[in-house]
Amino acid sequence: MSQIAYVNGQYVPRMNAVVNIEDRGYQFADGIYEVICIKNRRLVDEERHLLRLERSLKELRIAPPMARKPLSLAMRHLLRVNRITDGIIYLQITRGVAKRDHAFPVDVPSALVMTVNRIKLPTYETLAKGAKVISIPDIRWKRRDIKSISLLPNCLGKQQAREAGAYEAWMIDDDGSVTEGTSSNAWIVTAEGELVTRRADSAILNGITRLAILDKANEHAVRFVERPFTLEEAKNAREAFLTSTTSFLKPVVEIDGEPVGDGRIGALSDNLLKHYFQHMADQTGGA
Amino acid sequence: MSQIAYVNGQYVPRMNAVVNIEDRGYQFADGIYEVICIKNRRLVDEERHLLRLERSLKELRIAPPMARKPLSLAMRHLLRVNRITDGIIYLQITRGVAKRDHAFPVDVPSALVMTVNRIKLPTYETLAKGAKVISIPDIRWKRRDIKSISLLPNCLGKQQAREAGAYEAWMIDDDGSVTEGTSSNAWIVTAEGELVTRRADSAILNGITRLAILDKANEHAVRFVERPFTLEEAKNAREAFLTSTTSFLKPVVEIDGEPVGDGRIGALSDNLLKHYFQHMADQTGGA
Repeated sequence: MSQIAYVNGQYVPRMNAVVNIEDRGYQFADGIYEVICIKNRRLVDEERHLLRLERSLKELRIAPPMARKPLSLAMRHLLRVNRITDGIIYLQITRGVAKRDHAFPVDVPSALVMTVNRIKLPTYETLAKGAKVISIPDIRWKRRDIKSISLLPNCLGKQQAREAGAYEAWMIDDDGSVTEGTSSNAWIVTAEGELVTRRADSAILNGITRLAILDKANEHAVRFVERPFTLEEAKNAREAFLTSTTSFLKPVVEIDGEPVGDGRIGALSDNLLKHYFQHMADQTGGA
Repeated sequence: MSQIAYVNGQYVPRMNAVVNIEDRGYQFADGIYEVICIKNRRLVDEERHLLRLERSLKELRIAPPMARKPLSLAMRHLLRVNRITDGIIYLQITRGVAKRDHAFPVDVPSALVMTVNRIKLPTYETLAKGAKVISIPDIRWKRRDIKSISLLPNCLGKQQAREAGAYEAWMIDDDGSVTEGTSSNAWIVTAEGELVTRRADSAILNGITRLAILDKANEHAVRFVERPFTLEEAKNAREAFLTSTTSFLKPVVEIDGEPVGDGRIGALSDNLLKHYFQHMADQTGGA
């Protein structure tokens, strides 16, 4: 079945979807992206994703290729022509095509590419089984708050995790604290039952699922604090989990080969995961 | 005049030179590059560039798209079809095209793109005029020894320099020492006449021009040391300069608005620049 991609105003068969070799995304990682979950043909948390996209562009001084409303319509059109019910939509915006020169080009339009992927979204049952993580040093640049395509260290970290038989790698900053996973945010529940995740400063990406989980913690009077936690704290935590657009909330049942808690999904994680499914259902209609 | 690019085995008009939107270079900055100077139709320091390219690939575990000999022949063919006398050749290798997933794809060939640019190489007279630099924090990742295309912070830094009316930005590490420029290595000559540049560890890229200058310092019994130096040291230095493939050796005559030395090219810089021109002439025939 042929798939259609959006490339700078054109809807083209995905196999023929190309960019010039002098696109600054290709030569300089000079661009940003978003991944939005699609459920029942609807976009989950679209507004927050588009707000973050606009923030990333602003931080890099890349002009938005189009306003929010037409972008939203173009996304919907892409979902329709691909007949996607459940999956993800991927958006990438770069500073455009220009003769190679590190400094910003003048009068060059930014470039927008979008693709959709049909995927089977994770169920409660698969998520509840939990995942293993390993810890690795965080060697990334210092502006992780920008959702840039400068993802080489994330790729290297994810590959390390995969080779270790783990689902994700949690990255450890110079001060010994966990920043986040290579494509997810990191959380623990302390022995005292307090939910902990790092404050969204420039050390981490402010995940949209992270924000939704904080909303749910607020609504349900869960005691939580946004602060860094160490790897030791995580290994001794009562519960641990990760959040992301495509993994929703996934319990972490093992860190560096050591079980977390009793090695199964914890009570608070379980509650928050169920709240998150409800959060998605509220927006997309149906459980 | 139409230009020809090399894209994965094909010689194609540059305007039509494209890569798939799922090339990992475009989505993840998962690739490396080299820029080699062309003078009199010859490649300057080709072997060192190709050795470094192979090292970058090895560090990232990207398979070389071809062996060194055929790569060298392909470069020469590209120079010929483009009738380039003086300029640069740009090589970029990525981990190839694959469905988006941070971890490495299996059985996917790496991708090679090459372009050439005719440029007027800098002369002694233009270089001797010197350049201004500004200082900025070094916010890059920790594997700067790999010549990766993960260049977003370098672009932001170069843009800052340009807006400040400067040629380059020198990046300052957390400990206050200068690492390097956004696309060049950094050097000073102390009040005692000692040549100083940072040791090539993972904090900097080991420039090919840097290596040639160190060779010349050795040959001509110039006293030098490879160690970090601070921004303060640089501002109080007798001489300062930067080196790169396309800027050769360029005196730094001003840092953050303060003159370095007497604000003109220094005696040792002048000698080393002349030696570097001789080094190029030795390889390319003619002055």
